[in-house]
Amino acid sequence: MRATFMYGAGDVRVVDVPDPKLKQSTDALVRVVQACICGSDLHPYHRMRAKADGTSMGHEFLGVVEEAGVDVATVKAGDLVVAPFAWQDNTCDFCREGLQTSCRHGGFWNSGDVGGGQAEAVRVPLADGTLVKLPVAPDSALLPSLLTLSDVYGTGHHAAVRAQVNPRTTVTVIGDGAVGLLAVLSARRLGAERIILMGRHKSRTDLGRDFGATDVVAERGEEGIAMVRELTGGDGTHTVLECVGHLPAYEQALGVVRAGGVISRVGVPQYSDGDIGWKLFGRNLTLTGGPAPVRHYIEELMPDILDGTVEPGKVFDRTIGLADTPDGYRAMDQREALKVLVRP
Amino acid sequence: MRATFMYGAGDVRVVDVPDPKLKQSTDALVRVVQACICGSDLHPYHRMRAKADGTSMGHEFLGVVEEAGVDVATVKAGDLVVAPFAWQDNTCDFCREGLQTSCRHGGFWNSGDVGGGQAEAVRVPLADGTLVKLPVAPDSALLPSLLTLSDVYGTGHHAAVRAQVNPRTTVTVIGDGAVGLLAVLSARRLGAERIILMGRHKSRTDLGRDFGATDVVAERGEEGIAMVRELTGGDGTHTVLECVGHLPAYEQALGVVRAGGVISRVGVPQYSDGDIGWKLFGRNLTLTGGPAPVRHYIEELMPDILDGTVEPGKVFDRTIGLADTPDGYRAMDQREALKVLVRP
Repeated sequence: MRATFMYGAGDVRVVDVPDPKLKQSTDALVRVVQACICGSDLHPYHRMRAKADGTSMGHEFLGVVEEAGVDVATVKAGDLVVAPFAWQDNTCDFCREGLQTSCRHGGFWNSGDVGGGQAEAVRVPLADGTLVKLPVAPDSALLPSLLTLSDVYGTGHHAAVRAQVNPRTTVTVIGDGAVGLLAVLSARRLGAERIILMGRHKSRTDLGRDFGATDVVAERGEEGIAMVRELTGGDGTHTVLECVGHLPAYEQALGVVRAGGVISRVGVPQYSDGDIGWKLFGRNLTLTGGPAPVRHYIEELMPDILDGTVEPGKVFDRTIGLADTPDGYRAMDQREALKVLVRP
Repeated sequence: MRATFMYGAGDVRVVDVPDPKLKQSTDALVRVVQACICGSDLHPYHRMRAKADGTSMGHEFLGVVEEAGVDVATVKAGDLVVAPFAWQDNTCDFCREGLQTSCRHGGFWNSGDVGGGQAEAVRVPLADGTLVKLPVAPDSALLPSLLTLSDVYGTGHHAAVRAQVNPRTTVTVIGDGAVGLLAVLSARRLGAERIILMGRHKSRTDLGRDFGATDVVAERGEEGIAMVRELTGGDGTHTVLECVGHLPAYEQALGVVRAGGVISRVGVPQYSDGDIGWKLFGRNLTLTGGPAPVRHYIEELMPDILDGTVEPGKVFDRTIGLADTPDGYRAMDQREALKVLVRP
C-alpha cells in the first residue's frame, strides 16, 4: 500500500510499504477514509534528523474496518470507525480514570510495529479499546467534523476541561491553529462567556470568532499581555488555554492569567525548562494539561457534531489525495492552509 | 519596644525601635503573646545582603489587642487574636474567592511601614480582615497550636487542599520541617490513608508518623524516588506535597508523582526555572500551590484544635524569650530545633 513517511526535516514522501495485517487477535485492520495533517507533525518537519528508513506519519484517521481479530467484540468488518491519536485498552485503571494517554497497555501510532494514519490502511492494536463506531455513512458530510474527534477537537476540549472552564471563568486561548480554535469552541461549549483569542492570522481568528471568541488580540509578547490585561480590568483571565507549545506562549500565558488562575497546556512543549518560580507560585497559579485522552471524550463530544450544534470540521480548509501529502505539509508549514484533510 | 531585625545573612539582632502606633482608623495595635521563627526566615538568614538599617522579622504571632482604630468592628482592646502571615481586607473579590494572599488591599508583614511579629507589639493594618479572635485565655495550653494557624498549619493544609487530597488519594509529603509535618497532619485530616513522608531527621519523621504518616523514606534524589515507587507498585502517589522550596525537591516531586497526579508546592521556591517539558506534560501532571491564604482556613481549622482532635503545636520543640531570637535562628539553622516559639 501507499503510506506517508518522513525522512528528515522537510523531507516527506509517499512510499510503497507492505500491506498491514492482523498480528494479534485483538487487532483490527482499518481502510482509511479520511486522515489529516496535524500541527504537531510540523515539529519533526522542522527538526527531524535525517533517518534512512524514515518514520511513518499521521495519527488522526477514520475509516472502514476491513478485518477484525477473533477477540474483537465491538467493531466488525464494514463498520465506519474513528481512532484516537493514541491506542489503549480502555479498561486499565488509568483508562477508567479518563487518562487513556497513560494506558498501561497502550501506545502511539508510528511507533514500534504500528503504522500511521496518513496511509491507505492501518493495523489498530487493542481495537475494542481504541476504535469508536460512527453512526453515519462513509460519504456523510459530517466526516470532517467527526475526524476532529481523533485529536484536535478532543485536545481543545481537554485544554478547557483541565482548566475547569465554566460559565463563571474568563478564558484566554493562545494560538490560532486548529487546536486553539477548537479550544475556543470547547470553552464556549462549556459555558464561557468571555473568550479572548490570541492569534495573528485574520482568516483563522475570524473562524475563532465564529466558534465563540469574544475578543481577538493579534499582538504577542509584552504588548499582547498588556492588551489582555486592559481587556480584563488589569487582572487577566481565570484560565489560559495554551495551544502552541513554544516557550514564548508559556511566558505569555504567565502574563495574562489572573491570580489564582489556571494555565492549561495542550501544545506539546518544545522546551524543557520554564519559569516556575515566584511568578507562578506567588499568585497561586496552576499549571496543568498534557496529551489529551481523546478516547475519553469521544462519546461526550460526538452528539453535538451529529446534530449540527457544532461544526469543528470547519478547521479543514484544504483537501488533498494521499499522493499530495508532501505538499500538504508544505502548505501547513507556510500557513497557506490551516489544516489539511487527506483522502487516501 | 524591642524587636527582632536582620541585617544580613546570619546577622540577627534584637534592637530598640519606636513603639508602633495606630496610623489608620482600620488599624489595631497587638501586644504579642507568642510568636515564632519560620523555616522561610532561614532563606534570608542564608542569603540576605547586608543592609545598614536591617529589616524587621517575624510573620507569625498571636497576642492581645491593645488598641483598635475607630473603624475596627470585630475586635476590641483585651481580645486575644491570631494574625495570618499576610494582612488583608477579607472583602475584595480575591478574598471572597479564598485567595487572601492576593488581596487587592493587603500586604505582608515587614514591608513598608508595617513591622514584624518577632517583637513586643505590632501595628495590624485592616484589623477586621486580618485578626481572628481566639476563644481561649491568654494562658491557655492551646496557644502554641493556635499559633500555627498563623502560617505553618494553614500552609500545610493549603498544600493538601490544592492537591485535592481525599480518602482515595495516596500522598507523598516532601520535607520534614514544620510545614511538611503539618501537611501530613492535614492530608490525614482530609482522609488520606496512605501518606509517605520523605525526610531524614528521625525525631521529625517520628512526629510525622504521630501526625499520620504511614511510611517514611529517608533517602533523597533518585534513591528516594525509587523507594517511593517501590512502595506504590511502581506508579508513585496521586499527590505530592512539596514543602521545601529547593529545586531538588521539585525534581523529586516529578519523580514520585503518579501519571495524572498533582504536585502542590508550598515551600517558597528558591529557584525560577524548572523542568516543565515532556516530563511534566507527557503524564498530564498538574503543578499548583503558592502562598497559603491562611486567613481563609482559620475558622475551618480552629475547632479541631480547640477540641483536641489535632495538636499542630507539637512542632514547637523549643521556647525562648525575645532577647534570644538570634540564638533561635541559629538553633533552627543548625537543626537543633524544629521550630522555635518566642514569648516576648
